[in-house]
Amino acid sequence: MPPADHTDAVELLGLVAYTELASFGRLAGDAAHAPTLRQRQALSRLAAAMLDRQERVLVRVEELGGDPADCMTPFDGLFDDFDARTKPSTWWEGILKGYVGQGVADDFCLLAAQGLDERSRDVVVEALTHDTPSQRYAPVIAEVAAEDPVLASRLALWGRRLVGEALGVVGDVLSRRPALARLVAAGAEPVAAGGGSGPAPATQSWVFARLTAEHSRRMDRLGLAA
Amino acid sequence: MPPADHTDAVELLGLVAYTELASFGRLAGDAAHAPTLRQRQALSRLAAAMLDRQERVLVRVEELGGDPADCMTPFDGLFDDFDARTKPSTWWEGILKGYVGQGVADDFCLLAAQGLDERSRDVVVEALTHDTPSQRYAPVIAEVAAEDPVLASRLALWGRRLVGEALGVVGDVLSRRPALARLVAAGAEPVAAGGGSGPAPATQSWVFARLTAEHSRRMDRLGLAA
Repeated sequence: MPPADHTDAVELLGLVAYTELASFGRLAGDAAHAPTLRQRQALSRLAAAMLDRQERVLVRVEELGGDPADCMTPFDGLFDDFDARTKPSTWWEGILKGYVGQGVADDFCLLAAQGLDERSRDVVVEALTHDTPSQRYAPVIAEVAAEDPVLASRLALWGRRLVGEALGVVGDVLSRRPALARLVAAGAEPVAAGGGSGPAPATQSWVFARLTAEHSRRMDRLGLAA
Repeated sequence: MPPADHTDAVELLGLVAYTELASFGRLAGDAAHAPTLRQRQALSRLAAAMLDRQERVLVRVEELGGDPADCMTPFDGLFDDFDARTKPSTWWEGILKGYVGQGVADDFCLLAAQGLDERSRDVVVEALTHDTPSQRYAPVIAEVAAEDPVLASRLALWGRRLVGEALGVVGDVLSRRPALARLVAAGAEPVAAGGGSGPAPATQSWVFARLTAEHSRRMDRLGLAA
């Protein structure tokens, strides 16, 4: 299969960069309201590190002839509706929102990245899987959930709400951005060929099934019911 | 003159680190509300770069035997009162608040840094003078002020309010943290010896005179009346 043309790649890299910019803002905001100075420092560091990784994604956009700011423009405001529908009522709900929402966004981008040229794919995989805030924050959430069953059951409910809304954003992106749907389809073929009997690849339901499975694994790691 | 002992140095480095952490949060918040995606990206980058510099300050704290989180603890909440008294009513007021408030805080830390050992002083000077958000944002504020005289006069008024409140924080720090007053005094002696006829060094009025002069120069660069 030929690599996706550069326009499609720049579009996905733009989505990844925009997602990281949005996550940066959210994490920095969570940091400002963290219960302790140590958590404030740790979350701020995670946010800053995320933006450093975003910079490498934007470098790849330039290598492909794209513009680092313009590539994000199509996605400006992408999470506004999601954010309006999922206002956390506690600090922990905010932290879980980051974990779930960014988890779904990253998993979607990683699925689509399978359709990219090798160098772009490496950049995306590195940006989204290396020392992510999710990896760092899972133990903290798991610990508080284990200690406080009432909080754990509230967070489990909140997680289900979050993943539903997050999948809504993914469905919206898939239907509005054909380039991303093409990349998902291109990346899904070898996976499906080796992977047996799931639904037809590159359909929304195939994507949702993959993202939901990843979400369940993620909630398991927290000790929360998915 | 002997260098200040390590306890005093760690205290000033803690103040610098805390100031940068607070500025990070403020800049990231300004970024999230920036009028355009380009400004949002640019401000987010500035915030992330600021936290990278803070990391080098915390490395120096460790070199001196201090703890990177504990060194900030004495200053936790230092700007809460300042923030409550200076809530920006527009995005531009928020940007000017960063420029003025951080300018005063940085100038104070630079004055006190003159009393540090050479290596610690270099770390502080590098953190506070190299490619700061203030340097980057001055032209942007100057441009909008030149184009819009009504906004310019409002911002000039706002700047006077901000510097008054910022000097209040400095006075508070000087009276509550003897270590910092000692560093300012230690650093002021050679300056005063060469510098002539100002008020006696290391008094609050000497510090205020220096900070006010720097503030006026800063407002001049914006084309705003100090």
